[in-house]
Amino acid sequence: MIHLQIGKIIRDYNNFAIVSHTSPDGDSMGSMLSLYSILQQNNKKVDMFLDDVLPERYSFLPFSEAIRPFIEGKKYDCVFALDCGDPERLGKCKELISKAMMVVNIDHHISNYLYGTINMLDINASSTGEILYDLFISNNYEINKDTAECLYTSILTDTGGFKYSNTTSKTFRIVGDLISTGIDFPKIYSSIYDRKSIGQVKLMSRVVSTLDMALDNRVALLSMFPGMLKESGANEEDASEFINISRDIDGVEVAVFIKEKTNQSFRISLRSKNVVDVRKIAERFGGGGHIRAAGCTVEGNYEMVKTLLIDEIKKHMDVID
Amino acid sequence: MIHLQIGKIIRDYNNFAIVSHTSPDGDSMGSMLSLYSILQQNNKKVDMFLDDVLPERYSFLPFSEAIRPFIEGKKYDCVFALDCGDPERLGKCKELISKAMMVVNIDHHISNYLYGTINMLDINASSTGEILYDLFISNNYEINKDTAECLYTSILTDTGGFKYSNTTSKTFRIVGDLISTGIDFPKIYSSIYDRKSIGQVKLMSRVVSTLDMALDNRVALLSMFPGMLKESGANEEDASEFINISRDIDGVEVAVFIKEKTNQSFRISLRSKNVVDVRKIAERFGGGGHIRAAGCTVEGNYEMVKTLLIDEIKKHMDVID
Repeated sequence: MIHLQIGKIIRDYNNFAIVSHTSPDGDSMGSMLSLYSILQQNNKKVDMFLDDVLPERYSFLPFSEAIRPFIEGKKYDCVFALDCGDPERLGKCKELISKAMMVVNIDHHISNYLYGTINMLDINASSTGEILYDLFISNNYEINKDTAECLYTSILTDTGGFKYSNTTSKTFRIVGDLISTGIDFPKIYSSIYDRKSIGQVKLMSRVVSTLDMALDNRVALLSMFPGMLKESGANEEDASEFINISRDIDGVEVAVFIKEKTNQSFRISLRSKNVVDVRKIAERFGGGGHIRAAGCTVEGNYEMVKTLLIDEIKKHMDVID
Repeated sequence: MIHLQIGKIIRDYNNFAIVSHTSPDGDSMGSMLSLYSILQQNNKKVDMFLDDVLPERYSFLPFSEAIRPFIEGKKYDCVFALDCGDPERLGKCKELISKAMMVVNIDHHISNYLYGTINMLDINASSTGEILYDLFISNNYEINKDTAECLYTSILTDTGGFKYSNTTSKTFRIVGDLISTGIDFPKIYSSIYDRKSIGQVKLMSRVVSTLDMALDNRVALLSMFPGMLKESGANEEDASEFINISRDIDGVEVAVFIKEKTNQSFRISLRSKNVVDVRKIAERFGGGGHIRAAGCTVEGNYEMVKTLLIDEIKKHMDVID
């Protein structure tokens, strides 16, 4: 059984590194830190590396201050690569993989390249954290509060707060076990989801004031101009979730976010609720994406860009009528 | 054991009514409908009554169309009163209680008056739905998809999406069991939480544009004037959650929502994040509430009211500095 095989590796080796993908998220951070916590408890020498800036949002996690940027010339006997389907997404940390005697690749993404010496891939797991929980339990490692906080964060964030369809009965059972350690999960939840900057709130008010409805209120458009960022003291990243505000309006099928990049050039994000394949709409303008979330860039003046988009969306709406 | 005692009542009686509190919420609706589903499966005659308007948000729930407003002169052998601590909160349905041979009072509120012939009170349960789950399992009633959807809704809403501290390991285990019936829980989640009206979104933009920060950005104030409701085509209820937007700003300890009711009269809502007892602030103006959520009415002109509030909040901030 692979769980016990990895347990044996943890017993046999002593010099570990843990790496994960760039653009770190709750699952990659939580996974790294939970495994770090377990290896430390087992008196192992272990370092963590991430070739990116750590999100402030997850700085509350235990041991997060021990994650370091990539350091040239380091070499480890065993490297754990977590939540990362493609070694290219490790950034510079890829080098640690190529130098290691043993690479343990633990992930839940179906696209995983199986680049490890040992590959523990479970595409039915909600998150890499969920796989690690199984690993820890199978090897009788003690899940203390620190470890539980990290695993809870992994699972919470990769399931969107237990609401995505990747959440299973097993996921809920595991979370039940994790909170029984006595972690302050309401505080963790708030730290992650219930926080905004003043600038972000000001920017939201400005962007939402541009709300425009089309095609019998089945399309909702929001727009953002560079001046709004300046006035509100926010950055583009602060606007990343605003499109959900328009998508969540009752009766809306397609939500459009129009972001002016430079004069006459607009970055477009598209979301659909139930039916329309927005990837096809984005592809019409040379973009791409998924069925429910896609993007493209459109040149022209603002009103013309809006009309072009609505006309194209109309064609895809007509099909479903 | 009370579970089996209630099971016997369900076996012995045949003529049931189910009632719950006015201002129905997800737990009261989900509880009523899950019990209705079980009684129907057991071939019992059962009616449901609610002395209030049913929230559109929960109209997707199975059997919700069977809930009726109170009808004068009806009489039932056994009445189940669910999620309701005080018979006065049943509105006109209180009459059914006084006429019934047997009243089964099932609730999780510590304030429950124990007004039933049988009282099943579990203050450690996250929701009445969680208590009903135990009741159904103990009596070997089959929890089918309909029943599971209702119980999931009960638990989801009373735990604020599994984030409040009333959520326990047991809660998570139960939710795991409920979703194993194959219910489309991501759709239920979205139906309840991810929906807004156009008017509500327009109103939010207007209200959030009034954002005012005070006391070194530790106090965030939002204001709403009657004209905003008219312009956006929204109603007061649409604004009920806006105060969370300001409370969730990083560094904010106290959030204030100022709602102009009539000229020179303002309804004030107060929320605090971690430390300040806002009830004390509300009491200073003749209002009341809880430590983290309170309210009061203040008379005067807008700027004066704001200054009065900030001055009072400052006193309570100074204490914690």
